[in-house]
Amino acid sequence: MTTPPTSSETRRPQVVIIGGGFGGFSAARGLRRAPVDVTLIDRRNFHLFQPLLYQVATGGLSPANIAAPLRGLLGKQANCQVLMEEVTDIDAERRAVCLASGDLNYDTLVVAAGARHSYFGHPEWESLAPGLKTVEDATEIRRRLLSAFEAAELTEDATRRRSLLNFVIVGAGPTGVELAGSLAEIARHSLKEDFHRINPSDARILLIEGGERVLLAYPPDLSKKCQLALEKLGVTVRTNSMVEQITDSTVTIKTDNGEETIPTKTVLWAAGVEASPLAKILATATGAELDRAGRITVEADLSLPGHPEILVLGDMAKCHDQSGNPLPGVAPVAISQGKYAAKLIRERLKNRPTTDYQYRHLGSLATIGRSAAVGEIGRFHFSGLFAWILWLVIHLMKIVTFRNRLLVLMQWGWSYFTYDRSARLITGQDSKGIATSEAASTPRK
Amino acid sequence: MTTPPTSSETRRPQVVIIGGGFGGFSAARGLRRAPVDVTLIDRRNFHLFQPLLYQVATGGLSPANIAAPLRGLLGKQANCQVLMEEVTDIDAERRAVCLASGDLNYDTLVVAAGARHSYFGHPEWESLAPGLKTVEDATEIRRRLLSAFEAAELTEDATRRRSLLNFVIVGAGPTGVELAGSLAEIARHSLKEDFHRINPSDARILLIEGGERVLLAYPPDLSKKCQLALEKLGVTVRTNSMVEQITDSTVTIKTDNGEETIPTKTVLWAAGVEASPLAKILATATGAELDRAGRITVEADLSLPGHPEILVLGDMAKCHDQSGNPLPGVAPVAISQGKYAAKLIRERLKNRPTTDYQYRHLGSLATIGRSAAVGEIGRFHFSGLFAWILWLVIHLMKIVTFRNRLLVLMQWGWSYFTYDRSARLITGQDSKGIATSEAASTPRK
Repeated sequence: MTTPPTSSETRRPQVVIIGGGFGGFSAARGLRRAPVDVTLIDRRNFHLFQPLLYQVATGGLSPANIAAPLRGLLGKQANCQVLMEEVTDIDAERRAVCLASGDLNYDTLVVAAGARHSYFGHPEWESLAPGLKTVEDATEIRRRLLSAFEAAELTEDATRRRSLLNFVIVGAGPTGVELAGSLAEIARHSLKEDFHRINPSDARILLIEGGERVLLAYPPDLSKKCQLALEKLGVTVRTNSMVEQITDSTVTIKTDNGEETIPTKTVLWAAGVEASPLAKILATATGAELDRAGRITVEADLSLPGHPEILVLGDMAKCHDQSGNPLPGVAPVAISQGKYAAKLIRERLKNRPTTDYQYRHLGSLATIGRSAAVGEIGRFHFSGLFAWILWLVIHLMKIVTFRNRLLVLMQWGWSYFTYDRSARLITGQDSKGIATSEAASTPRK
Repeated sequence: MTTPPTSSETRRPQVVIIGGGFGGFSAARGLRRAPVDVTLIDRRNFHLFQPLLYQVATGGLSPANIAAPLRGLLGKQANCQVLMEEVTDIDAERRAVCLASGDLNYDTLVVAAGARHSYFGHPEWESLAPGLKTVEDATEIRRRLLSAFEAAELTEDATRRRSLLNFVIVGAGPTGVELAGSLAEIARHSLKEDFHRINPSDARILLIEGGERVLLAYPPDLSKKCQLALEKLGVTVRTNSMVEQITDSTVTIKTDNGEETIPTKTVLWAAGVEASPLAKILATATGAELDRAGRITVEADLSLPGHPEILVLGDMAKCHDQSGNPLPGVAPVAISQGKYAAKLIRERLKNRPTTDYQYRHLGSLATIGRSAAVGEIGRFHFSGLFAWILWLVIHLMKIVTFRNRLLVLMQWGWSYFTYDRSARLITGQDSKGIATSEAASTPRK
């Protein structure tokens, strides 16, 4: 039986939080003074600042710069313990979370396990076109991007070189735009003098979007500005284009003008997400409804229908704002929902009347590249240098630890003045077997 | 045919360097003004500052902090190209290096492929007791160390918890001492407040040495000081102890008092190294002699007997100093040999008489932990804070790029004042399957 040691002594209400992302972490923080025992469960031992993950994937930052150990963050919070564990099941009747190490009883359960990328019924594409959700995804993408340039330098075959220098990014949401923009900058600036036989700026970066414009969630004028900025960086943008097929050397897209097959060795997936598989487990346990993206429909107070003691947050929850628009799967929503959940739990303990969750949309910001970003705050739309500086400042402020704030600031400053991206390491094992025999011999069970 | 583009125009002497470590890199640098075409071949795309690798393994630094992309370092050297490739064979008669992408002809060949850890005829121990030579080794060791504490926090079984908190390090050379010292500090300081059920300082760190004392290569008085410092940190040192057997849950050691089996889930290997497998290829190609550690016996000018055009450097070469003592496999030796090789090549081009290689031993320094190190410079032996500060300054100065120097300095300062080690990430896939499904789904062919 896995229950916190304190519970036996004091029998305080047990709050179990699944997920140490933005939602779960801010819920745990919001309960630091509440008379409850909090247990935060995550499969990873760190909180990840996902908005900057693309900079790890493009060699600008190291994983540890955007991740902070959960124990370090919550270690001083006396009423909170952290378990690095996998949730195998949820028993809503017995109010227990099932873990490999035993069951864990709860009085209130907060589920914030986030989302992963979705391949729209083509799971076989996952190994061909990795998405960007975890540190492993980021280092794998970094390995593929840099290895493609290395392999292009080695080959004598012009056709193969061409396909090695074609990079296709599927999905022109913020992540796709950020990846395309940084990749273009790497090819044109960071790697400029690095090669003798190829010219990295011969790289073609193709951004494919199924919708009619990039950044669909943004106002049309900003989408237009974003596309212009991308094209200025040398990115080819294809809207109204659906991916038909992905192989290890081609991508086939369908447009109004018919089909087209692009030879490429590197495809990145930024097209869509679906809720963590835990949502299905929760739905089975409680009869809650799932939408097409696997998200759970919640009540106005983020609780499950018929289960007020279970709250669902962040990318896993299907919510709407006052005007009925669905809330986007972004950090600010998850953070505000985590804070709300903590407040709701505190109010309930005091038997105070609780209010429904309301999201105040402050604005959106998406960065494209050096001195280029677009954003909106209320009625104000802006782009270019100002938007970019705003993006820098906000993201820097939001990074969780002071130490990482310093490290990121330093490396951003460095990159800005030198155009250098120094975390350009090809690590991990490589399908072409380029990795060292030492690396090859490290166990990967 | 993979030959540098320039060669056709100018027909300059072709120098091929295998290995971008300390030896190969300083050889390439030493030829920057020479009228030759240099091709540096490495399986990795970065130069690694191995002396600090143990700090990556113990969560103090990120891999990118101690690695610099070779192309970035050599990109501005017009006469040098970098190939990220694997050497499959060497044809000494045709003076060609065989690569997957084709053959590469040389007039002078510099071989500096380094060493890997040796399990003394027990290759099956490698997956049970990883060594520390590559970035992948370091992140794998970091994963194992941190995962052991996490698993100990989860288990209810006292026996299992005990074996999870037993850490065995085999080999008390500088690397073994550094690992043992940092691990002790992590357990006693960095993780102090992190856990609710276990007390990380209950961890037992056992350092096993086959020889009669730690740091055998150092003067006895310093070995004594080092062992005392380790014991002060809580490390148990066992000298004259040979490893008999390693399983996934035990280590059996043989001492004068008989055998002993220690239950442990974490064994690290720092006991010995052997030259890169490339040494065998070279020996077959040239008839050169290999010693027990697979190193190649070289002439007084580092060339192969009967092959003055082939030079062997660093951990791959068996050399002696004037008094006949074998040179240690450390960075200063490799660097000075790289510089010597470049000078030799330049002198030969000018048909000047060349001098034999001589190593001037400046001294040795080994760090144990916070404010604790031992060292000797000539007749002077010193230890404690002074040795430690000297170690810090020298290593900081030797780190290759200015950017990394700043990043390392910042993180060292941070760790010193906070006792924190913030790069405590458990990444990569994990034998216990704790890693996220996203991570699990990233391809590892």
